[in-house]
Amino acid sequence: MDAIDIKKAVQYRKLIDVLLDSSQFADVVLKGGYFINVITREIYEADVAMKGEYILMAGDAKDLIGPKTKVENIQGKFVCPGFIDSHMHFESAMLTCTEFSKLSIPTGTTTLIGDPHEIGNVLGVHGMQAMIEEAKTLPNRILFTVPCAVPDAPGLETSGFDVTSKDMKELLADPNVQGIGEIQSFSNIRPVYEHAPELIDDLVAAVSYANSIGKTVEGNAPGLFGKELAAHIISGGNHVSCHETTTKEETVEKLRNGVSVFMREGSSQRNMADCIRAITEDGLDSRRAILVSDDMVPADLLNYGHMNDIVRRTIAVGIDPVEAIQMATINPASHFGFKDVGVIAPGKRADVVVISDLNNMTVDQVYLAGKKAAEKGELTIDIAPYIYPESVKKSVRRKSVTLKELAIEASGSRAKVRAIEAIPFQNLTGGSEFTLNVKDGIVLPCLKQDVLPLLVVERHGRTGKIGKTFLHGFDLKSGAIAESVAHDTHNIIVTGTNYEDMVTAVNRVIAMDGGIAMIKDSKVVGDLPLRIGGLMTDELTGKEMSEKVDELSQLAKDVLGCGMEVPFMHLSFWSLVTSPKWKITDMGLIDVDKFKVIPTIIN
Amino acid sequence: MDAIDIKKAVQYRKLIDVLLDSSQFADVVLKGGYFINVITREIYEADVAMKGEYILMAGDAKDLIGPKTKVENIQGKFVCPGFIDSHMHFESAMLTCTEFSKLSIPTGTTTLIGDPHEIGNVLGVHGMQAMIEEAKTLPNRILFTVPCAVPDAPGLETSGFDVTSKDMKELLADPNVQGIGEIQSFSNIRPVYEHAPELIDDLVAAVSYANSIGKTVEGNAPGLFGKELAAHIISGGNHVSCHETTTKEETVEKLRNGVSVFMREGSSQRNMADCIRAITEDGLDSRRAILVSDDMVPADLLNYGHMNDIVRRTIAVGIDPVEAIQMATINPASHFGFKDVGVIAPGKRADVVVISDLNNMTVDQVYLAGKKAAEKGELTIDIAPYIYPESVKKSVRRKSVTLKELAIEASGSRAKVRAIEAIPFQNLTGGSEFTLNVKDGIVLPCLKQDVLPLLVVERHGRTGKIGKTFLHGFDLKSGAIAESVAHDTHNIIVTGTNYEDMVTAVNRVIAMDGGIAMIKDSKVVGDLPLRIGGLMTDELTGKEMSEKVDELSQLAKDVLGCGMEVPFMHLSFWSLVTSPKWKITDMGLIDVDKFKVIPTIIN
Repeated sequence: MDAIDIKKAVQYRKLIDVLLDSSQFADVVLKGGYFINVITREIYEADVAMKGEYILMAGDAKDLIGPKTKVENIQGKFVCPGFIDSHMHFESAMLTCTEFSKLSIPTGTTTLIGDPHEIGNVLGVHGMQAMIEEAKTLPNRILFTVPCAVPDAPGLETSGFDVTSKDMKELLADPNVQGIGEIQSFSNIRPVYEHAPELIDDLVAAVSYANSIGKTVEGNAPGLFGKELAAHIISGGNHVSCHETTTKEETVEKLRNGVSVFMREGSSQRNMADCIRAITEDGLDSRRAILVSDDMVPADLLNYGHMNDIVRRTIAVGIDPVEAIQMATINPASHFGFKDVGVIAPGKRADVVVISDLNNMTVDQVYLAGKKAAEKGELTIDIAPYIYPESVKKSVRRKSVTLKELAIEASGSRAKVRAIEAIPFQNLTGGSEFTLNVKDGIVLPCLKQDVLPLLVVERHGRTGKIGKTFLHGFDLKSGAIAESVAHDTHNIIVTGTNYEDMVTAVNRVIAMDGGIAMIKDSKVVGDLPLRIGGLMTDELTGKEMSEKVDELSQLAKDVLGCGMEVPFMHLSFWSLVTSPKWKITDMGLIDVDKFKVIPTIIN
Repeated sequence: MDAIDIKKAVQYRKLIDVLLDSSQFADVVLKGGYFINVITREIYEADVAMKGEYILMAGDAKDLIGPKTKVENIQGKFVCPGFIDSHMHFESAMLTCTEFSKLSIPTGTTTLIGDPHEIGNVLGVHGMQAMIEEAKTLPNRILFTVPCAVPDAPGLETSGFDVTSKDMKELLADPNVQGIGEIQSFSNIRPVYEHAPELIDDLVAAVSYANSIGKTVEGNAPGLFGKELAAHIISGGNHVSCHETTTKEETVEKLRNGVSVFMREGSSQRNMADCIRAITEDGLDSRRAILVSDDMVPADLLNYGHMNDIVRRTIAVGIDPVEAIQMATINPASHFGFKDVGVIAPGKRADVVVISDLNNMTVDQVYLAGKKAAEKGELTIDIAPYIYPESVKKSVRRKSVTLKELAIEASGSRAKVRAIEAIPFQNLTGGSEFTLNVKDGIVLPCLKQDVLPLLVVERHGRTGKIGKTFLHGFDLKSGAIAESVAHDTHNIIVTGTNYEDMVTAVNRVIAMDGGIAMIKDSKVVGDLPLRIGGLMTDELTGKEMSEKVDELSQLAKDVLGCGMEVPFMHLSFWSLVTSPKWKITDMGLIDVDKFKVIPTIIN
């Protein structure tokens, strides 16, 4: 029992006094609203009374209104529990937890389950702990699910630090760590079982330890059915989620097998509309259907909202508003075993949202632990900027590269090569073969066929390797783009229409201590320093980041002629070796299903 | 991490091999049945494959059938998770956990949440631990929720041992202790708040400690609404149940406020049909509706079943069978946070029930941790009788009583007295006043008015006090009945048509080291020794106990002319001071709402 538990006991004792001693009163009463009860799936009129950080009761609260009670008349408006985002990466917004929260709190999100595996790949336990420490300074509830296997695919990629079962004791001891995050290392189950069974031993060890101390474990099971799905679930300890479910059939299969389906509807990947058909068409019990964002860009947070927008879109495809709200409140709370949030009831943390238009999910007011934190889209509390320690800001440990290092070599005048096939708005890829010209022993990009070199440059100071392949379908007309955001090990990924600009782009990223760089004719077209692990920045607000990303996207289109939308996000996923088919890492071209490196140049 | 966790990890690793290595197979496959999916609320055809203690998968299991696999064809039958009884007292059946389990396993109950507060009142921590140790020898899953306040009402009654927050560390440390049981000490909330606020401090301390180590807390909130209900919920740590809910209105109020409603439908108190109207009439989400027995007598287990019978009756009042089964499987598992039972899915404990007739809930086969334990109502495994240590068998610490001690005294020739009003099949009572004749300073029973002396004799060797009042409505024609089962402190309660027989009855109970005795004309009409804490016996099987209780009930009717059904159970509840209105303890007549002793003889 620690001081937090004792403090809660002391405060609870006070709540009982307020309820039973007629001379004591609530601090705040939201009066006369339509109460959205996510337990019973009802809407009825009820006041919400709060004292300190907690809910006193929801019902007729007139006896709890005293001379000092702040009474907020919300007649005609709706009141519901604060929203929970059950799976999200702060790194995707390239913002600190602080700047992300400043955008998400006014939209009604009061609890975030962050997964810091990106910074964990770069900086290991130390990097994740830096993020966890930041989150503790914030007024919203932020918990973390941490990776138990970094890199995802040992032997096929190089991370900055390795995380395995040996690190679980230290990481999971933190009370703000909810458990183990997406177990990507066993998402691609058959190849891992056949080629790297030792990963499974380590995973089972980490998961069993986590469960034994009451921590949860999240899954990651794209496209798995039947025995493979069962093996994945068991590897995760039997109570897992999946946020990589993309079809109705997968949704049905996973719900039936005890998986909580985290229906993803973020900025880049939108799977809710397909998944939800298991509910709307087949009428399945929705208690384990949960809405998550996974990845959000600041512009979407600013322009459309966060969980409120996902709930809005869920209502729009035919789910009753209260049921949709359950998917962002009580359902995730039940999944994680949260006892204090997800519903409005006596003794719960007073995380409360007032909604003025239910179908549009227009958020009018937001309360965090009993304190009004936002109104009409604007924060009403001060949240100070958070500056990260220098120890997480010098993460690019590599000298400049040369053209000789980057060039893809082949003999003869033409080479048959393998190329990764870009698929818009997917992190999975295809694979094709092309024939390219070779000059002076170097394979040349071919704009006509839209085939460009795609390289990953190790930047953690461990191997210095450079993996090389080709990319088809990016539709870049000139210049090069490089970035230190490259899932999941976050080496520097680069593509371009010519090697010279690619060299300049990589070296610009190195010089910035991480970030994104666009180069044309050896000049910087645009760049974005991301000095926290090469992934995020504490130098921009959410609004500034949104503008910056818009500006870069526009430059990519206008100056480099890139035909693919959100090119930086797409580029960053072509190194993710946990989803099919071919990917590029510092080790080379990876055949994900065969769990091995394959040659780019076909003899 | 203890050895149990490690063993599970080792076994899980094996399950993954069976699923992914085509040369390995399931131990048991239930083939071709209708699968009742309590997660999605569906029924569809699916096999269930098991290995060791666990479920491998539910689905098409043909690949998992090898030469040694035991294949059970269950075509045309239904398969569902084993049933959970979320709140029950072994003491109510007067049987050991072993004999109770031998009756309940064949009916499909695979998990029992026992509440040992009866033995706890008599023998304290030691007595509860003796029961917990017994349960660990059994193949079904038995967990316990233990009291944090014994006696329920300090100052108004005398228990054998006191249990308070000081005992929580020792009691809750046991892995088979799920948490704190029904917090009766704060069910009668207003009087306790006004008269014994120190109880609330101790309760909040015990509850906070339990929650801080991940243990759950159950409520007990008969008739509470609004602020009183909220205060009760908060005193229980905010995530509580109530198994004392008796009306639709209470059910709605409690579900709305975050209470899991344990709809009681046991041998003595049947509340499900009223409670369920919140679902059938108002259409509330039923995820927190849970079926429990609370108290079962062996005859009902033998003749009708256990949770399967409660599910059957729930179906009969209009709930869809799958939804009714949810109330005895996934709903309780979610309430308690059980990750391993309540659903059939990969990695779960293979507690599985095969049902031949769904609407009648006819249980065909029962599997406990992958092993067939019962078929067609008969156990197929051996369960050895369990003999309790002598340390729990000498719990009656009192010398014989005399007529002078028992007689209710008054001056004059007539006395105005208070009498407890018996209400059939309720543990609450009324209160009335009568005028009785007095002879030689002793108030006489009056058969004409049906007013008899009702006494509680302290038997724990602590105070030796005898509380005295009268009882109206028991409809006893001759003799006396005494028993050491007298909720919750289990002193000896006695009533009779004459003091002589009452003396003999009490002394018979003392001589037996506890039990039930019926006396007429100073002779034993019938008796039942209950040597374990004066509450239970390890000398009878369930069937023998059932026959014995039938015999005693018949004798009570035939020989003593008792007009009240199940007289022993009714008698045992008239000392329960946590439910209104008047009750009798060793301290005297208790006005429950005023939380004090009131005189029986009115001046």
